Amino acid sequence: MQITLGELASQLGLKLIGDADQPVTGLNTLKDAQAGEVSFLANPSYQSQLSESRASAVIVSEDLADQVAGSALVAVNPYLSFAQASQLFNDRPKVTTGIHPTAVVAETATVAADASVAANAVIGEYCQIGAGSEIGAGAVIGDHCIIGDHCQINPNVTLYHNVVFGDRVTVHSGTVIGADGFGFAPDKGKWHKICQLGGVRIGSDVEIGSNVSIDRGALGDTVIEDDVIIDNLVQVAHNVRIGQGSALAGNAGIAGSTTIGKYCTIAGGVGISGHLDIADGVHIAAMSLISKSITEKGAYASGTAQMPMNEWRRSATRFRQLDSMAKRLQQLEKARKGEV
Amino acid sequence: MQITLGELASQLGLKLIGDADQPVTGLNTLKDAQAGEVSFLANPSYQSQLSESRASAVIVSEDLADQVAGSALVAVNPYLSFAQASQLFNDRPKVTTGIHPTAVVAETATVAADASVAANAVIGEYCQIGAGSEIGAGAVIGDHCIIGDHCQINPNVTLYHNVVFGDRVTVHSGTVIGADGFGFAPDKGKWHKICQLGGVRIGSDVEIGSNVSIDRGALGDTVIEDDVIIDNLVQVAHNVRIGQGSALAGNAGIAGSTTIGKYCTIAGGVGISGHLDIADGVHIAAMSLISKSITEKGAYASGTAQMPMNEWRRSATRFRQLDSMAKRLQQLEKARKGEV
Amino acid sequence: MQITLGELASQLGLKLIGDADQPVTGLNTLKDAQAGEVSFLANPSYQSQLSESRASAVIVSEDLADQVAGSALVAVNPYLSFAQASQLFNDRPKVTTGIHPTAVVAETATVAADASVAANAVIGEYCQIGAGSEIGAGAVIGDHCIIGDHCQINPNVTLYHNVVFGDRVTVHSGTVIGADGFGFAPDKGKWHKICQLGGVRIGSDVEIGSNVSIDRGALGDTVIEDDVIIDNLVQVAHNVRIGQGSALAGNAGIAGSTTIGKYCTIAGGVGISGHLDIADGVHIAAMSLISKSITEKGAYASGTAQMPMNEWRRSATRFRQLDSMAKRLQQLEKARKGEV
Repeated sequence: MQITLGELASQLGLKLIGDADQPVTGLNTLKDAQAGEVSFLANPSYQSQLSESRASAVIVSEDLADQVAGSALVAVNPYLSFAQASQLFNDRPKVTTGIHPTAVVAETATVAADASVAANAVIGEYCQIGAGSEIGAGAVIGDHCIIGDHCQINPNVTLYHNVVFGDRVTVHSGTVIGADGFGFAPDKGKWHKICQLGGVRIGSDVEIGSNVSIDRGALGDTVIEDDVIIDNLVQVAHNVRIGQGSALAGNAGIAGSTTIGKYCTIAGGVGISGHLDIADGVHIAAMSLISKSITEKGAYASGTAQMPMNEWRRSATRFRQLDSMAKRLQQLEKARKGEV
Repeated sequence: MQITLGELASQLGLKLIGDADQPVTGLNTLKDAQAGEVSFLANPSYQSQLSESRASAVIVSEDLADQVAGSALVAVNPYLSFAQASQLFNDRPKVTTGIHPTAVVAETATVAADASVAANAVIGEYCQIGAGSEIGAGAVIGDHCIIGDHCQINPNVTLYHNVVFGDRVTVHSGTVIGADGFGFAPDKGKWHKICQLGGVRIGSDVEIGSNVSIDRGALGDTVIEDDVIIDNLVQVAHNVRIGQGSALAGNAGIAGSTTIGKYCTIAGGVGISGHLDIADGVHIAAMSLISKSITEKGAYASGTAQMPMNEWRRSATRFRQLDSMAKRLQQLEKARKGEV
Repeated sequence: MQITLGELASQLGLKLIGDADQPVTGLNTLKDAQAGEVSFLANPSYQSQLSESRASAVIVSEDLADQVAGSALVAVNPYLSFAQASQLFNDRPKVTTGIHPTAVVAETATVAADASVAANAVIGEYCQIGAGSEIGAGAVIGDHCIIGDHCQINPNVTLYHNVVFGDRVTVHSGTVIGADGFGFAPDKGKWHKICQLGGVRIGSDVEIGSNVSIDRGALGDTVIEDDVIIDNLVQVAHNVRIGQGSALAGNAGIAGSTTIGKYCTIAGGVGISGHLDIADGVHIAAMSLISKSITEKGAYASGTAQMPMNEWRRSATRFRQLDSMAKRLQQLEKARKGEV
């Protein structure tokens, strides 16, 4: 891939300050970029690297354009323009259209002519695979699944039956969608399984990381709305609903029947208990436990901050005494007022 | 699936108050149920929905039967009866008995005549697959595994060698049982691998979620006793033993050689350190860290509760000063007593 | 496997105090060992079991050799010698050299003559598989991957394109290496994907557990250096670098662009935020959140210790009042000094 800065500016709709004929071959960080590469500045904390970067051009906001050592590609939202540039330099290997001879596709399934089904993939009865969609090697699609157009299901993904995708859904390897939710009725020391009769519905423009578990609903569906992004190793329990545009970072877990609003950001390792409602626009800090519904947008956290171990031990010991400390403090306050 | 309320009551062993000839076609929540559907009330907090539900019948305890708008199916344990009803309405696609032509089954393996081995599954040497058991597409069963009767091993599950299951064990996709435990002897900056010579033994009536990791023992086996249920993305390290009837929720992790007693409930995201003993009947709250053995049944927790971020920052800062605060409090108490 | 104590001592380079002709057939713990088995004492807390163990021999340090009931195998580092002994008794089934007829290997891929590619494995274009390496059943290796010598890639592992391994790398089942990092530019309620243009480089003598996710770099590579060990269900985000000899325990998660130094130990369930630098020789306690860089070696923690639920509730309530408590304490101190 080689492109001149002029062509790049044109394709990204950016103003170029510099040499339009300069060829560039890739993207890199300000720190690591070499001549012939394009970089970007989205995070102000890297601003000091602007003048020292060897990048041939930097995607930058207008107010910082004069600080760029090489050429400047002036953007309203430099990070967005960088994302668009990354699409141009994408070197992901092309997949071969059609059904690989070792794939096992049920006779009742429908696969679009320009879709691809890779080696050893298995597609169940009555499935529909949309135009331009890819089913990776070793992926297993259960019966009655509907996959929209231009979806990318990577190798060794598993979908159970009755999972429905919109368009442009990407699912990374190892992810399991539609396994049984964790529903059991206890009786006399035994757990009696509740058959999980619902399915999973996933909107359009959704990306789901690797080794994610999204369970099918018990009654009714588990729902992931449009424009949701989910990182690796995330647990989404049965009948959860995740609102449009929300993002869940790695190792997060959402327990059953909880609803996450729109445009929420759930940081890594967060746990959210079951049967809660989280309002739109809520941000949960990393590794927080949320055990009550949140009705107002804003940022929330639990836990404590990192400390050297020896100091932490002392604080942790005192945490166990906190109630007693609070009562003794009250006692002293009363004494001061002459009440005791 | 269509059944009259009279037949349903008969099959579930419940008293019907209402129209025995009314046909019903499915289950749903009190809130979402339509005419022709059956619902249930197990959680008292939904009691107010009883009178408004459009369900044709509700599975309910005797004392609330007169509050049901439609027919009532009177149950001693409504949630258990609902679980039993869910089995009747189960619409999981039937699997085809026999070995799919693309499956690779070792000549020394034994597969029961009515078992099923799906497309591209691989079964190792000397394995035994019991009556009515299912091996899903792409699942890999290592050498010398014994799978009892009526087990359900879903697609893309991996079992290493020497993994033994009882009967009626369900394992969801992406789960790995019998991989090497995390055992290494450090010496001069290198980690020297300890071969994991044990296996994994899983009892009967066990359900294991998706993307779970259960490691083989280092010496002796990792053991999951009868009637245990394990949710998604749970880590069970080498030589752990999980006692009968216990439940582990999603994202929990149990470190090596720890024993969990019988009838424990380990909530989501809990971490339990290695070489501990957890007594029978212990409940651990979500995302707690357990780093010492627990000898008495009861409920345990660690961590702090959720707060708006700005308030949390202040509390977190004070947590670091807790030991100093405690000492200053003591100083004031001494001063009051005239000791200083 | 049967060996005399004399041969065992010779192969491990240990001094034998006892019967050189005694045959032994396996390893076991001090507590469970039977006659004919060898045990070891590495953890001083098990010292009291030395005199009662039925083991025919115990690998032990010189100062404790006279407390062994049976024969003693005297070692400078008993745990290391036990690790070496475990290699001798390793009973992992041998894999068959060569490419299984159901494997799908691209014509442009190179597989060493003594490597093995198991049933239904898929190997992409231009891959290189080194001498003695094993590709397990159902594993999928993307295009342009380079696997060194004597690597062990277990069943149902997935590697995306451009993943490079050194020698003697073991990867357990369900693990996904090289999936896209979680990079998106937000704009007007949409997440715009940043193509992940880097790869993954993994050194030599690395072991990676089951159901681990290691993402490819956005720009430049995600890097795991030599001698790193990673347990199950660990998340390693894009452009993370993990330094030589470090160990990450189960359920840990490292966010994007963070660098972990050499010889660090990251305990189970730890979360480390993105763009941080962790110095060499740092130990992070289980389930801690690290949200700031650590510049000094040593042990660090966050969180609180376990408590019975009722006591925990009181402490957790007081935690929310901590800032107010601190201010009231200051007020009392001022009052005592006569300042108010």
